[in-house]
Formats: sequence, structure tokens, C-alpha cells
Amino acid sequence: MLLNGIPNDNIPLTDRGLHYGDGLFETLAVVKGRPQLWDRHMARLARGEAALHLPSMDRSRLLLEAESLCEGCEQGVLKILVTRGSGGRGYRPPVPCDPRRILSLHPWPEIPATWYSDGIRLRVCDMRWSRNPKLAGLKHLNRLEQVLARQEWDDPGIGEGLMLDEFNSVISGTQSNLFLLRSGRLQTPDLSYSGIAGTVRELVIECAAGLDLPVDITTLTLDDLMAADSLFMTNSLWGVCPVSRLADTDYALGQIPTRLREAVAAAV
Amino acid sequence: MLLNGIPNDNIPLTDRGLHYGDGLFETLAVVKGRPQLWDRHMARLARGEAALHLPSMDRSRLLLEAESLCEGCEQGVLKILVTRGSGGRGYRPPVPCDPRRILSLHPWPEIPATWYSDGIRLRVCDMRWSRNPKLAGLKHLNRLEQVLARQEWDDPGIGEGLMLDEFNSVISGTQSNLFLLRSGRLQTPDLSYSGIAGTVRELVIECAAGLDLPVDITTLTLDDLMAADSLFMTNSLWGVCPVSRLADTDYALGQIPTRLREAVAAAV
Repeated sequence: MLLNGIPNDNIPLTDRGLHYGDGLFETLAVVKGRPQLWDRHMARLARGEAALHLPSMDRSRLLLEAESLCEGCEQGVLKILVTRGSGGRGYRPPVPCDPRRILSLHPWPEIPATWYSDGIRLRVCDMRWSRNPKLAGLKHLNRLEQVLARQEWDDPGIGEGLMLDEFNSVISGTQSNLFLLRSGRLQTPDLSYSGIAGTVRELVIECAAGLDLPVDITTLTLDDLMAADSLFMTNSLWGVCPVSRLADTDYALGQIPTRLREAVAAAV
Repeated sequence: MLLNGIPNDNIPLTDRGLHYGDGLFETLAVVKGRPQLWDRHMARLARGEAALHLPSMDRSRLLLEAESLCEGCEQGVLKILVTRGSGGRGYRPPVPCDPRRILSLHPWPEIPATWYSDGIRLRVCDMRWSRNPKLAGLKHLNRLEQVLARQEWDDPGIGEGLMLDEFNSVISGTQSNLFLLRSGRLQTPDLSYSGIAGTVRELVIECAAGLDLPVDITTLTLDDLMAADSLFMTNSLWGVCPVSRLADTDYALGQIPTRLREAVAAAV
């Protein structure tokens, strides 16, 4: 792990990331030493920096450090975590602040091959996403809702949990975004009030446009999901992963356009 | 600072408090070496531990460590921070987990004497509280909304900012709870969906019952606040602090029952 570019296993107890979740993170797939979708991750980080009024991290330095950490890694996961740095007791952020950056390399997670061949099973979580348009879409460090949602099940046969908002709109999985296919259209939840705008979600939306596949970014309910022809989940490590079952509804596999899967696979 | 009872300035970078805000905290006034309202703070911590499915911290050990840290401190602030401890990458909490406890002693903040004699001025923040009934009331580590609300002003003449929810209900200050007096009744926002249930808020509600002062825990709007006879804010360091002004509305001071102020002052 690198803390501000220097190998370190610890961070000062005064860091505001710890005290308030006052910071941001990105999780990137690493293939043959290279972090994937770098520009998209940096763009989301920039949106977060703007929303939190954090100074922008130097991107070329961040890339140098990332490449140095990932050197020789055939396949892994790079986590980049940025905090506002240390600050006194109290919510008010110090001005100026001295942000910290933490880069860590992790083993590639075990993703069952059957998830891609047979699809994953979903459950519906009790924990809901709260709504806040000023924080929605960002990958900030306030992630208790997803932690508690993920804590709800330990059946390894369930691949992901769906999280709704207070108004019963489906927002996302605990760690992935959601798409459905219905009558030749792609639909994905609007994330203006809740959720995290995933880099692969963004990529799927762009690829679909190139394939003349219409995409609706809209409000979706569980009924909409039940009525869909097929569902799939996306994140930066899974890529595109089809859903086999949600509650009592089975979904057809193989309906995700091959060109869409290939376009995403090529980029991830 | 004490990390798990041992003087330390650092915490492992793998701590889930840093990565997800997966933990809780308490801020206690310290007077003559003794943390105040200990039982109330521990009761709120217990509610948080239950909600996060954290094992309960040993309270007698925590008190011993707190007293040792606060020894000789005439007046100060004790912060107790509890995290789920280290865990792998990913939202899913490790089972079992090995929580960490961090105790830190801070100088007493500068609270202007005029806040008590002349009241404090309030502003209304743009940042809203999000709503989540499973997290409301708890003092967990996901505090970005309050950080960003507190970041909205730096006029030292403004003592506190009011935060509303999505439905325009007034919830609290950025770091304090709110009460209003109207026609001989005390009213304070219902915190079932947002906000932090303060220890002094709890104390005021109990004291009022003993003084035959009716208390409504209810939904309040800015119009309700404008129509109030007087307002006051509470937190564990301020105690009870009258409000002089909110936007263009001036409030009468000295309407807070002396016996209520005295009862709270005696306990804080």
C-alpha cells in the first residue's frame, strides 16, 4: 500500500476519512499491470472532488504511482482512496486542507464462472438507499447502507442484492449497477438521487448508443424488473453479468446483445 | 490518543472505518477528569452497535481507558470512535470482526460567552439530511452531509446552520439538536428518518417531563420555527444555547425556563 506515494500500512488517527467518511474512492480492474478505464475513474473522482470542494489530485502523479504499484500484476484490483486529510475535531473542514491518497493492490476476487454462463441470482435487500442529489452518483466514503445491505445474506448462491430507495424505485445492486432489456430497449435506473454511477454502466450506455440500442435512464420498480426480458448487472470487476433469477422470476440468458458484451469486454 | 488502550497516533490503512465509515462515535464533555453523561452516550453507542451488528464494546474497559486519558483534565472533549476493524476489500463485513476503539482527548472548543447571553444566529443550509430509518438517530461515521453543510459558511457571526430533509422538515443543526417553545409547549423534530438523537436532547425531554412542560416530538417546518416564541439548540458541549435570529426572524431570549436550563446545566 502507498500512502502519499510512500509504502505504509498506517494512516494518522486524525484523518477525516476515518472520522466522517470525508473522501472518495475508486476501484479499478488491473490487467497486465495496467489499471483499466482509468479516464472514466478519474472523471468520476473529479466529480467527487468538485462536490466535496476538495482540491484536485494531480492525475499524472496518481497514474505514476498506480503503474508502479501494479507493475507485474497479471490481474488484480487497484483501490484508490482520497481523503481530505487531517483536521481538528468537528465537521468543519480545514481550509486549506492537505488531502491524502492511498493506493492499494488486491487479489482478483473469485468470480464464479457460472455467473457468466448461468447468470447470477439476486435478492431484494431490506436496507434502502437514502436520497441526496448532492451526493448521488459519487463514490464517496459514506457507504454504511451498502455495508449493511451486504450483511443481510450469506447464502453463496445469491450473487447480489438489489437496493431500492424510500419510494420503492430500484436503484442498484450493493456493488453493481443494473440494466434490463425489454422489447428491444435497454433501461437503467436514474441515479440523480441515490446510487453510484458506475464506470461500466457509463460504458454500456455509450456502447448501446453505438449499436443503435435505445437506452432509457429512468425510474424502475420491481414490477418493471419482473416484466423484463432479461436483466444484467455491471461493475468494474464483473463487467457485464447476466441475472438468472430475482425472487420467483427466472430470466432468459443470452439475450444481451453479443456486440454489447464484446464492446464492454474489449474495454474492460 | 489511545488505540485499543495503547497510545498510538496511527491506525491500519485496512480499517473499515476509513473505507466505508463502518463504525460509530461519541463526543463527551469532560469536566474535572470525568466524562459527562456517560450512561447516555453508552446507550446511544449500544443502539448503534445493534444497528450495525457490531459486538458490544466492553463498557467497563472503555470507562477505565476514558478515565485514564481524562485524568487531570479540568475541561475538555473526549471522542470515542469505534470501528468494525480491518476487513478485506468489499462491502461485506468480516465475520467475526475485531472492532477497534479510539479514544482521543481534545481542548474545550471556544464557545463565545455571547451565545448564552445574546443567543446564536442561525442560517439555513442548502445541504439536506437524507432519510434512512435504519440509520436515523445513530452517531455513525457517515457524516458527509454535515461536513458539507458546515462548509457552506465561514461568517463567524453565524453560530450554526439548520438542516432540513427532502420534504422541508427541519431536522437539526449541523452539530446540534433543535427545540422551540410555543404557547407554553416545547417542540423538537422527530428523528425517526434523519438526524442524530443527541444526549442533551434526551436530557431536555426528560427534564421537561419533570417540570410539567409538555414536549411534542413532531414534524416541524421553517414556518413553525418562524412562529415560535423562542428557539434553542443543544449538544453535549454547548448544553442549552438560545437562538437570537434565524433569517429575518428575531427571537425573544430568556424564555427558556430557568429550571430547565439549570437542570441541564447540573447534568452537563
